[in-house]
Amino acid sequence: MSDRILHKGLKAKVMSAEEAAGLIPNGAILGMSGFTGAGYPKAVPIALSKRAIEERMKGKPFKITALTGASTGPELDQAMGLTESVSFRFPYNGDAVMRQKINEGVIEYQDMHLSHAGSLVRYGYYGRPDNKIDFAVIEVTKIKEDGSLVFSSSCGANTAYFDVAEKYILEVNEWQDERMEGMHDILGVTGRHGERTPIPILRADDRVGSPTLKIDVSKVAAVVVTNNPDRNAPFKAPEADHKRIAQHILDFLDGEVKAGRLPKSLTPLQSGVGNIANAVLVGLNEGHFENMMSYTEVIQDGMLDLLDSGKLKIASATAFSVSPEGQERFNKNIDRYRKQIILRPQDVSNHPEVIRRLGCIAMNGFVEADIYGHVNSTHIVGKGIENGIGGSGDFARNSAYTIFMSPSVAKGGKISAIVPFASHIDHTEHEVNGIVTEYGFADLRGKSPKQKAKEVIEKCAHPDWRPILWDYYNRSLKGGSFGKHTPHMLKEAFSFHTRYLETGDMRPKK
Amino acid sequence: MSDRILHKGLKAKVMSAEEAAGLIPNGAILGMSGFTGAGYPKAVPIALSKRAIEERMKGKPFKITALTGASTGPELDQAMGLTESVSFRFPYNGDAVMRQKINEGVIEYQDMHLSHAGSLVRYGYYGRPDNKIDFAVIEVTKIKEDGSLVFSSSCGANTAYFDVAEKYILEVNEWQDERMEGMHDILGVTGRHGERTPIPILRADDRVGSPTLKIDVSKVAAVVVTNNPDRNAPFKAPEADHKRIAQHILDFLDGEVKAGRLPKSLTPLQSGVGNIANAVLVGLNEGHFENMMSYTEVIQDGMLDLLDSGKLKIASATAFSVSPEGQERFNKNIDRYRKQIILRPQDVSNHPEVIRRLGCIAMNGFVEADIYGHVNSTHIVGKGIENGIGGSGDFARNSAYTIFMSPSVAKGGKISAIVPFASHIDHTEHEVNGIVTEYGFADLRGKSPKQKAKEVIEKCAHPDWRPILWDYYNRSLKGGSFGKHTPHMLKEAFSFHTRYLETGDMRPKK
Repeated sequence: MSDRILHKGLKAKVMSAEEAAGLIPNGAILGMSGFTGAGYPKAVPIALSKRAIEERMKGKPFKITALTGASTGPELDQAMGLTESVSFRFPYNGDAVMRQKINEGVIEYQDMHLSHAGSLVRYGYYGRPDNKIDFAVIEVTKIKEDGSLVFSSSCGANTAYFDVAEKYILEVNEWQDERMEGMHDILGVTGRHGERTPIPILRADDRVGSPTLKIDVSKVAAVVVTNNPDRNAPFKAPEADHKRIAQHILDFLDGEVKAGRLPKSLTPLQSGVGNIANAVLVGLNEGHFENMMSYTEVIQDGMLDLLDSGKLKIASATAFSVSPEGQERFNKNIDRYRKQIILRPQDVSNHPEVIRRLGCIAMNGFVEADIYGHVNSTHIVGKGIENGIGGSGDFARNSAYTIFMSPSVAKGGKISAIVPFASHIDHTEHEVNGIVTEYGFADLRGKSPKQKAKEVIEKCAHPDWRPILWDYYNRSLKGGSFGKHTPHMLKEAFSFHTRYLETGDMRPKK
Repeated sequence: MSDRILHKGLKAKVMSAEEAAGLIPNGAILGMSGFTGAGYPKAVPIALSKRAIEERMKGKPFKITALTGASTGPELDQAMGLTESVSFRFPYNGDAVMRQKINEGVIEYQDMHLSHAGSLVRYGYYGRPDNKIDFAVIEVTKIKEDGSLVFSSSCGANTAYFDVAEKYILEVNEWQDERMEGMHDILGVTGRHGERTPIPILRADDRVGSPTLKIDVSKVAAVVVTNNPDRNAPFKAPEADHKRIAQHILDFLDGEVKAGRLPKSLTPLQSGVGNIANAVLVGLNEGHFENMMSYTEVIQDGMLDLLDSGKLKIASATAFSVSPEGQERFNKNIDRYRKQIILRPQDVSNHPEVIRRLGCIAMNGFVEADIYGHVNSTHIVGKGIENGIGGSGDFARNSAYTIFMSPSVAKGGKISAIVPFASHIDHTEHEVNGIVTEYGFADLRGKSPKQKAKEVIEKCAHPDWRPILWDYYNRSLKGGSFGKHTPHMLKEAFSFHTRYLETGDMRPKK
């Protein structure tokens, strides 16, 4: 028996993952933990996948609705994707196999702002006719004497799923360090209309909730003990282009401080996941800003560096996404990090109310951006989903600075990240105020669409692509007397993409 | 001398509009009052337009930057548009002449979420190098003994412009009813990073500010007395299609109440401007919902009807947009309306924090919507601006219900409001959860893009257009094995629009 289960009644609920999966009927709606490959259930989803195979061998269908915080690990999305045991996936996916199934049209997926996920679930929009879901399947580090839970390496949308689920299945993961207790700050954002109150966070380091979550233990149907690592992806050193992007952002922030628009310690930083985001964090660690705070979704290795150097006072997030080395460092210094790191539910970490109040600096990657500042964060040639919008929209829409970043080209220059018309639009001209590539920083604040086009083409596009983009823009501007606010030729608006689909190269034939 | 100016020092600042306009240099940045054709300055902008002509006759340039709350009246946007005396317009325009100049490329315009306008101005993004603007030009009803101001028929972004302007010009409009005093609830949302606190509105009827605004009277450079009406557009009785749209929305809300997802009094209503919005209000007045509240931007005639019948307990907004008859009724019953109507600054009425907390029902018109639920609120064939996004994005992004509505066709069937790919995207698949035409209500909640397409085509498209849209969708779905998440054929995505540009008819040739 695990010494992580201290509640007597719940000790009696311990069973195997297979037994727990056996409680879940075909067609069930499951709300699961997990965010950026951290804190997701690791045993029950595999057991469900195996069960789906068994049922199918008997000629019976077995598919469930999989709601999570955000991305999980292979034990959930890969296993359940492979076995096609998911009918509907929400609100984010980062797994290659699940993505393939979605793009093949086998699994339905709805891509959602991560701040909305819990809220919409609480409204009843993803539930059964009685507005409830069937099961919350949540990984925890520990169950305390009174049945309250110590969450693990992510908080995700756990509180929402506990609120609306009829029954709970808990995975107690002994691999998660017990000393994480005290790092979480659990504030449930109430769901009923008219009952919500302000979220009292005034600074990124405010703790406003409880370190553990008290649940109705009578709803716990099963407790499963596991000992499995999170999906810790290896850390890559920043590439030259990523360093240049980071430098443009640092220079821009420098200018804003000099102009008196930002304090020397900046405003709370939000930083997306990935190598460019990490390069910005590395750059900040080598730079001269001090006493920074972050109010973000994910703690990456670069964030740990900033905490270690003391440049960052506090990191507020909803999950970890660290390398195996980062994980080791985290566990080694966990008593210090407990004072520096706050893990919040995603509907608090990503809440428009708090982001707007704090005036965050949002820095996220993009798939493509168009000359007028519309940003595609999710789709390849408009139709295939890559990962999802994640929290980028929550931060883009409400931050004081909304910056999107990417190398200017991909596939050896065959793909331009700057296009005439983005083939899918996740962030609009109304909220994007900075686009950055290795060539420069396009400052879109206070500019009309035509003024933005000049800025984006000259500052961000790869030099090889500038004449091609200017040609599109200039011919659009000349055509007729109408519509010179946002000049376009809709017949050619997707010509980059259609050439790519035909020839594998966006560039026009010479 | 007007008896509306009770502050002694400010009495001495009274001058003609021409004299006040003479204080404003070429190139100045002006933050002006005005929202939905209400409460905008009516004399100084005309004087500025005349001055622009005079200066031009002398061979000198004269252009200013025109920041406002939202739309104004002909005295501002038409006069200054005609004379091309505006170099840059922000954040909204609804005037036909100004629109033409913008679409001809003569005047630059940035279209912005109305909740952001004041916030961005306070950050310094629209200011001079010292982050200030030159003048706030604000219409008021009265200046009190201590110099505090009674705003007029809109609050707009006045507080932001007073915060960042070096000097103030006040227009005291004697046409505005003095008894409006007490209707405004002025809460300034502080601008500096890290100083913002929660907006303490928990219900739509909470008053959290002051009925008047205290200003630094030493900054007042001029006071101009006027006596001119707001731009009161005549009210049109709902057309048959608008009534059908309204009925679909009422039926949907009925269903939500029955399903236990909405209380019988609904949640606070936000309703856009225009005839369809008014038809919904008329429908609500004939329906069975009681004790409703609204948390919206604009009070139209239909909202007065609801207050008169007692079905609506409170209307919170930032401006009026009533007909001449509505204006008469308003003035006649102003003492009652003062208890039922709250006028707030637009960065409070449209604030994501409050909208999210209250769980509003947002109902706004659209120009076109695509089969996957992306909505165009602003552009004609992707390039010509119509009006602007206004507050639709603020409400769409943060409400519990985000509904967009329009007749299914225009120009006698030549234009379909439902298209394969919206030619400009203002609201994305991630936030739009209801699309309505006279044919039905497409409920997009909890659906993947493919599931949404079926719903939009079958429920919303005009029957003549359904086979054409199905043809696009089905061929998109068949093409290749990749990209079946959001099936598209980018080569044909804008075929409706390009046919329209060529032939004046979106329909394929038979």
